[in-house]
Amino acid sequence: MRLLKIAEIFNGKLYNFKEDKEITGVSSILSAKEGDISFISEPKLKALAKKTKATAIFVKEPIEDADIVQIVVENPQVAFYKLIDILYPEEEIKPRKAKTAKISKKAKLGENVYIGDYVVIEDNVEIGNNTIIHPFTYIGKNTKIGNDCIIYPRVTIYKDTIIGNRVIIHSGSVIASDGFGYYQEDGKHKKIKHIGKVVIEDDVEIGANVTIDRAMLDETIIKKGTKIDNLTMIAHNVQVGENTILVSQVGIAGSSKIGNNCILAGQVGVADHIKITDNVIITAKSGVGKDILKAGVYGSGINAIEWSRWKKILFYLYRLNELFKKGR
Amino acid sequence: MRLLKIAEIFNGKLYNFKEDKEITGVSSILSAKEGDISFISEPKLKALAKKTKATAIFVKEPIEDADIVQIVVENPQVAFYKLIDILYPEEEIKPRKAKTAKISKKAKLGENVYIGDYVVIEDNVEIGNNTIIHPFTYIGKNTKIGNDCIIYPRVTIYKDTIIGNRVIIHSGSVIASDGFGYYQEDGKHKKIKHIGKVVIEDDVEIGANVTIDRAMLDETIIKKGTKIDNLTMIAHNVQVGENTILVSQVGIAGSSKIGNNCILAGQVGVADHIKITDNVIITAKSGVGKDILKAGVYGSGINAIEWSRWKKILFYLYRLNELFKKGR
Amino acid sequence: MRLLKIAEIFNGKLYNFKEDKEITGVSSILSAKEGDISFISEPKLKALAKKTKATAIFVKEPIEDADIVQIVVENPQVAFYKLIDILYPEEEIKPRKAKTAKISKKAKLGENVYIGDYVVIEDNVEIGNNTIIHPFTYIGKNTKIGNDCIIYPRVTIYKDTIIGNRVIIHSGSVIASDGFGYYQEDGKHKKIKHIGKVVIEDDVEIGANVTIDRAMLDETIIKKGTKIDNLTMIAHNVQVGENTILVSQVGIAGSSKIGNNCILAGQVGVADHIKITDNVIITAKSGVGKDILKAGVYGSGINAIEWSRWKKILFYLYRLNELFKKGR
Repeated sequence: MRLLKIAEIFNGKLYNFKEDKEITGVSSILSAKEGDISFISEPKLKALAKKTKATAIFVKEPIEDADIVQIVVENPQVAFYKLIDILYPEEEIKPRKAKTAKISKKAKLGENVYIGDYVVIEDNVEIGNNTIIHPFTYIGKNTKIGNDCIIYPRVTIYKDTIIGNRVIIHSGSVIASDGFGYYQEDGKHKKIKHIGKVVIEDDVEIGANVTIDRAMLDETIIKKGTKIDNLTMIAHNVQVGENTILVSQVGIAGSSKIGNNCILAGQVGVADHIKITDNVIITAKSGVGKDILKAGVYGSGINAIEWSRWKKILFYLYRLNELFKKGR
Repeated sequence: MRLLKIAEIFNGKLYNFKEDKEITGVSSILSAKEGDISFISEPKLKALAKKTKATAIFVKEPIEDADIVQIVVENPQVAFYKLIDILYPEEEIKPRKAKTAKISKKAKLGENVYIGDYVVIEDNVEIGNNTIIHPFTYIGKNTKIGNDCIIYPRVTIYKDTIIGNRVIIHSGSVIASDGFGYYQEDGKHKKIKHIGKVVIEDDVEIGANVTIDRAMLDETIIKKGTKIDNLTMIAHNVQVGENTILVSQVGIAGSSKIGNNCILAGQVGVADHIKITDNVIITAKSGVGKDILKAGVYGSGINAIEWSRWKKILFYLYRLNELFKKGR
Repeated sequence: MRLLKIAEIFNGKLYNFKEDKEITGVSSILSAKEGDISFISEPKLKALAKKTKATAIFVKEPIEDADIVQIVVENPQVAFYKLIDILYPEEEIKPRKAKTAKISKKAKLGENVYIGDYVVIEDNVEIGNNTIIHPFTYIGKNTKIGNDCIIYPRVTIYKDTIIGNRVIIHSGSVIASDGFGYYQEDGKHKKIKHIGKVVIEDDVEIGANVTIDRAMLDETIIKKGTKIDNLTMIAHNVQVGENTILVSQVGIAGSSKIGNNCILAGQVGVADHIKITDNVIITAKSGVGKDILKAGVYGSGINAIEWSRWKKILFYLYRLNELFKKGR
C-alpha cells in the first residue's frame, strides 16, 4: 500500500512527502527497515525519528528536524494498529468439519463453522455461524457458543456453558470446571455439588491456561468486552463487569463482584465475597480484602529493593507495634 | 420431592407448614423462585426470609416473623448441600472404551470403566473399577489409578504415578512432570534426572491446570482427603498431609512438608525445605520462609489501600531503619 | 555397577572399601536400602552417614567415624546426579509417525523423529532430527523445531514459532498465543493484532502449563540455556537472557528484558518495560517495578508471621506517614 493511500485512509496530512513510495511492512521504530512504516506517539521519543530506517512514520505533530516522511494523525499509535489490521488480514479459514471430530448427532452447528481435527462436541451443544473450533477442544453437553468465536486448540468447556458472540478463548483454558467448595463432616471435606454454570458475554477474550469455575448455584459471569490475560483464576459465582481488564495471574475468589471498566494488574488477588465498584484500578501484586466502593487507584504491592536493605527494614517493620508503643 | 419427604430425610421440624408442596429446584435465597428450596444459615440474614420467593427454606431456628415454610434442622447449609446431591444425581455414564482411544495391550482395565474418545493409555497402566477417563487424557506407562476416579478431559499423567480411589482430577492438570532441578557445570544448568514419582492418595480432588512435579528420588505425595484448587503448583518431593486445603494459585517449593488439616489460602507461597505442622492456616498471598511448628493462623498479605496513601507509607517504610536509628 | 567401576568413572578415592559390591540403586540418604548409593554434600549432615542403610556414599571428605564405604570426590552431589544418568538411561523411543497424527504434506520432518498419536502438525512446519513429539500436541504453521527436542503431551505451539535444539517443553504449555494488548476506542478495548513471534533458543527447558506470548512486532525471546518452571507467564516482546532461572509462577509483563544468569524466585512479578541486568537474584514473591541495573540480590517478599502479631504491625504500618509526621 502506497503512502498517499495510507494518508487518505487515516485522514492524515503528509509531511516531508516527496514520492508516493510503497509501504511493505510495519515495525517498531528501532527495528524498522526500508519499506516499513512505524509511529512515534510520545514527544520524548521524537529523537528516534532521526535514527529510524523506516520509510515513513505516523506522528501527532510534525517533527521538524527529521527528514523522514511523516503522516500527521490524531492518534499515531491507533493509526498504526489499524494499518496492521489492513496490511495483515486474518487469513481465511475455510469452513470444515474434520472427519476426526466427534460431533454428537444432537449438536447443532451454524453455517460456515470450522471444526478442527480431534474436536469432541457432546450432546445438545449449539455453535453459531462462522465460529472456529481448533483441534483437541472439548465441548461439554448443553453448551452454547455464539457467532464469530475463535476457540484455539486444547480448550475445555464443561457442560451448560453459555458463550456469546466474537468471544476468543486461547489454548489450554478451562471453562466451567467445578468450583472449589466443600463442607465439613466427620472431620472431612465433602464436595458441594456445583449445579450452576458459566456465562461469557460478547467480545470477551480469554488468554491461555485461564481457569473459570462454574457457579455452585446461579452463574459465574464475565460481562461483555472484558479481557482476561493468561493463567488467571476466576472462582465460582464471581461476576466480572463490562470492559474490565484482568492482567495475567490474577486470582478472584468465590462470589466476588468486580465492576465495569476496572483494571486488575498482574498477580492481584481478590478475597471471596468482595465488591469492587466501577472504574477501580488495583496495582500489581496487591491483595483486596475489603470492599472498594469508590473509584480510584488502590494497591500495596511491595517492590523489590536491595535484599540487604530490605532485611534491615523488615527488622523494624516486624517490631513496629513495639517501637511505637515504647516510644510514645 | 415433597416437603414432608424432605423434612423426613433431614430429620427436620416443619414450621409454617400448610400444604405438602412439591420442591422442584434449589436456589440461593435471593434468586429463588416458586418451587425452589433455599436456606438461611446466619442469623444476620434472617430478614431475607421475608423477601425470598422460595417455597421453603432450611433454617436453624424458626424465623417467627416470616410466612415462608421453614424446615428446622441442625445445619441448614449442609442439609441444603445434601438435598442437591439427592435432587441432582450425577448422570450415569455408561461404561465404554471408545474406539478412538489408544489403549496399550499391556494395560489392565477394571470393570465398568469409561474411556472417552482420544485417550492414550501406555504400557502397564492399571485402572480400577468404575473409573472415568474423559477425552484427550494421556496416561504414561506404569501408572496405577484406583477405583471410582474421575479424570476430566485433557489431563496429563506422566509415567509411574500412583493414584488412589475416588480421586478427581480436573481438566488441564499435569501430574508428575519433571521437577525443576539443575546442577551447575561450566556455568551452565545441567538437568538433574528425576526418577522419583507422584503418589496421590484416596479422596483427593485436584482442580484445573494444576501442576504436581515428580520427585527427584522417592515421592511427591498428596495425602488422603486433601483438596487442591486451580493453578496450584506443587514441586518435587513435596509432602502435603491429609485433609488439607490448598486454595488457588498456591505454590509449594521443593521438599517442603505441609501438615494435616491445614489451609493455605489463595496465592500463598511456601519456600523449599519448609516444614508446616498440622492445623496451620496461612492467610492469602503470604510467603512462608521459615518452619511453622505451632498450630495457628499465620500471614502477612499486604492488602490494597488507596494508592496515593500507600505511596506515602512506602516512603517511610523504605526508610524505617534510618528513621528508628536516627530517632533513638 | 560395581563400586570400583563407579570410583573409576568419577575419579574418586575409596574409603572403608572392603569388597567390590554391586550398586543396584540410588537413594536419598535416609530412604536408602542395601545396594543403594547416596551422597553427603554438607558437613552438617555428616552424622547421617552412620544412620543410612546405603551400601556406599559419595563424600567430599572421608567421614572417619562412619563404617560405610565412601567414595571421595570433588563434588559428591554432582557425582550422584551423573551416576543417575548412567544407571537410569532414558529409555529409547523408537522413531515413529503415528497413523493418527495429522501431519501436513507441506511439513518437513527430520530423521528419526517420533510423532505420537493424535498430534496435529500444520503447513510448512519443520522438525529436526531425533525430536520427539508426544500425543495431543498442536504445532501451528511455519513453526520450526530443531534437533533432539522433547515436546511432552498436550503442548500448543502457535504459528511462526522458532525453537532451537535440545529444547524440552512440558505438558500443557502454550507457546506464542496472542499478547495481551488492546487500544481504546469509543470506551471499548480493541484488539491489537500481534504479528510478531516467539523464539526459543537451544537448551531451554519449559515446565508444565507455562504461557509465553507472541510479540506484537518483532520477537519474544528466551535465550539459550534458560530454564522456566511451571505456571510461569512471559508476556509479549519480553526478552529473557541466557542461563537464567525463572522459578514457578513468575510473571513477566510486556517488553521487559531480563539479563543473563539471573534467578527470579517463585511468584516474582516484573512490571512492563523493565530492564534487569545480568546476575540479578530476585527473592520469592517480590515485585519489580523499577529497572535493576546493578547485579545483586533484590527482594521484599513479606513472610508469614503470626496473624495476630501481623494485624498489630499493620495497624502501625498503615499509619506510618502520620506517625512520623506527627512525631518529628
